[in-house]
Amino acid sequence: MKVAIVGIGLIGGSMALDLKSAMDNVKIVGIDKNEQNLKKAKELQLIDEVATLKDLKTVQVVIISVPVDVSIKVLAQVLDHIGENTLVLDTGSTKEKICESVKNHSKRRNYLAAHPIAGTEFSGPEAAIAQLYQNKTMIVCEVEKTAFKLQEIAFDIFQRLGMRIRYMDPHSHDKHIAYVSHLSHISAFMLGKTVLDKEKNEKDIFDLAGSGFASTVRLAKSSPAMWSPIFKQNKENVLETLTEYIQNLNEFKNLMEQDDFEKLFEEMKNTNHIKKVLNGIN
Amino acid sequence: MKVAIVGIGLIGGSMALDLKSAMDNVKIVGIDKNEQNLKKAKELQLIDEVATLKDLKTVQVVIISVPVDVSIKVLAQVLDHIGENTLVLDTGSTKEKICESVKNHSKRRNYLAAHPIAGTEFSGPEAAIAQLYQNKTMIVCEVEKTAFKLQEIAFDIFQRLGMRIRYMDPHSHDKHIAYVSHLSHISAFMLGKTVLDKEKNEKDIFDLAGSGFASTVRLAKSSPAMWSPIFKQNKENVLETLTEYIQNLNEFKNLMEQDDFEKLFEEMKNTNHIKKVLNGIN
Repeated sequence: MKVAIVGIGLIGGSMALDLKSAMDNVKIVGIDKNEQNLKKAKELQLIDEVATLKDLKTVQVVIISVPVDVSIKVLAQVLDHIGENTLVLDTGSTKEKICESVKNHSKRRNYLAAHPIAGTEFSGPEAAIAQLYQNKTMIVCEVEKTAFKLQEIAFDIFQRLGMRIRYMDPHSHDKHIAYVSHLSHISAFMLGKTVLDKEKNEKDIFDLAGSGFASTVRLAKSSPAMWSPIFKQNKENVLETLTEYIQNLNEFKNLMEQDDFEKLFEEMKNTNHIKKVLNGIN
Repeated sequence: MKVAIVGIGLIGGSMALDLKSAMDNVKIVGIDKNEQNLKKAKELQLIDEVATLKDLKTVQVVIISVPVDVSIKVLAQVLDHIGENTLVLDTGSTKEKICESVKNHSKRRNYLAAHPIAGTEFSGPEAAIAQLYQNKTMIVCEVEKTAFKLQEIAFDIFQRLGMRIRYMDPHSHDKHIAYVSHLSHISAFMLGKTVLDKEKNEKDIFDLAGSGFASTVRLAKSSPAMWSPIFKQNKENVLETLTEYIQNLNEFKNLMEQDDFEKLFEEMKNTNHIKKVLNGIN
């Protein structure tokens, strides 16, 4: 099987690694506008060859793993270049706009809208790691719009990567993912900013930081090139979650100002319920 | 050496484990108002015997590891009961109020104000783990107010636990720790609350949560009995950090509403600098 990966970074590179070990006779070609990434990906043996859109005619599967603003442009171009029976997947963290963008494309049935709930705070081909997708969730949107035979190929790949599948409509996906993924990134970025701003005046502040701070702020290391377009595409949902988050923080602040530490205790006690919810994640 | 641990949970219990393996002939006695905890601590061999304040006369070192509202009450009682040459440490996450509370105590020189930057989101004796303090920071406040010979004993213990020492005045400690520890907990608790509230109406939302969410919200599993008193004691500093955090989130929201995703990109890019800062933590 010949697989093309468009955008050979953390997500595409990790997929390449696992496809190579999970399948016989798989050949991976890489397409990337960044020459350095392609060179690095070849050195790291993530890809066997460099390719261009013109080579997609002879490819069975195309995986698009670029920032979500780029993937909207690239998906239509890829669909224009593929063969009749090529499967095209994207892996972006927003699904409504990309599904909308190709709804009238003559090759719509070649496309499967997907979003793997997997990743790290790092990016680029050096960030690719084996078994990133093991026991993780792959969200698939508008499955009914993809040709049945190509669905089968996709699900075989997801199974080989060790993933479970959840089906959602793009609208619900974007709404829910704003809460459990996009908001966490804003929370971490602004926590990082608040503490960095403080450090300008107060030296050595990070000497006091422990693993709790490191964990809470971890996502602030994430790539702005990836995240700025996500916030743009999912603006409405993200603003809703952000408004609620700020409201909850303001209520916490009010309780502190009113010295109502009993109510604060109750709030935290109720939120401890997150323990149960988090079992199974990680 | 006979060591008494007042409050035998995550912090005290983990210290007990390491003292036992780092020192010859150490005997650990436990004091706790919770009978269940004492029983559990004995079963887990964190302590050798149960004790009371009256037994402190014959103890060389007392470690107080209870919530910070309790430790203020307990510290004076402990100082009242100890022998002439007993060292007393506390391990609380606030230092100004506790130092203030014993500044005129006749045994002030027996007390060393300490705060280990170590822990997990769990609590109770079952949460105790070996080597929790290895390569971590111990903040020591008002070191000059502790008898020199007792300082030596304390630093020998910290060294055996694998810790490095940082000296600070209590006021600076509470101010800085509000940024790098206390604020992270509020950020995580309110993130957890925001998503849990949403889940009441939208089922299966956590099926979409990945390791990023889990990491950012991890501290929302922390004990309210420990954290509510910390926020109370450090109210002024915590409110300052919380106000700045909310302000940064509001600015982020404004940039999104104004579709200024270039500025948003810049903000995130600048905050990526946290990568360097976090190297060395964890």
